[in-house]
Amino acid sequence: MDETETMKKEDNVVFIGKKGIMAYVLAVVTQFNDGEKNVVIKARGRAISRAVDVAEVVRQKFVTDVDASDIKISTEEIQGDEGPIKVSAIEITLSKQ
Amino acid sequence: MDETETMKKEDNVVFIGKKGIMAYVLAVVTQFNDGEKNVVIKARGRAISRAVDVAEVVRQKFVTDVDASDIKISTEEIQGDEGPIKVSAIEITLSKQ
Repeated sequence: MDETETMKKEDNVVFIGKKGIMAYVLAVVTQFNDGEKNVVIKARGRAISRAVDVAEVVRQKFVTDVDASDIKISTEEIQGDEGPIKVSAIEITLSKQ
Repeated sequence: MDETETMKKEDNVVFIGKKGIMAYVLAVVTQFNDGEKNVVIKARGRAISRAVDVAEVVRQKFVTDVDASDIKISTEEIQGDEGPIKVSAIEITLSKQ
């Protein structure tokens, strides 16, 4: 039950990794096509630039009635090879108008 | 006169290029120390990740009373070697609280 709720909660989140941007664009577009009103694009470190690319491609080419309703930046601590390291992070919320 | 005004207008803007992030952190911190209430950090393409790093380092280590008051993303057209290409861009406004 808890697990289901957690999964449901993260349903509209797309984490940007090292794939090409179209993989993430497709993931975001699919969420909107499934009826989500808001999709959150999250990325850390160098993937941040790619997150902005994904948001811009979705907005301009695929789901033209969405806007970046909220953009947050922060610093997260992750486990590096030689102890914890700090990395910048971004969260871009795309919302249907 | 016009030129002076343009320069003045851009006074509180820091463009992120290919230098190390501390060069840009210093530029932003200097602007705040000179009395600016708002400093805009701009970047394109892969430098976007670095822009977020600069904003986060300024905010956490140097000028702790500023916040990211506004973050905008957009797409800009620049002249590439083989004609115009589109790149993502970010503008992060840091403001004194």
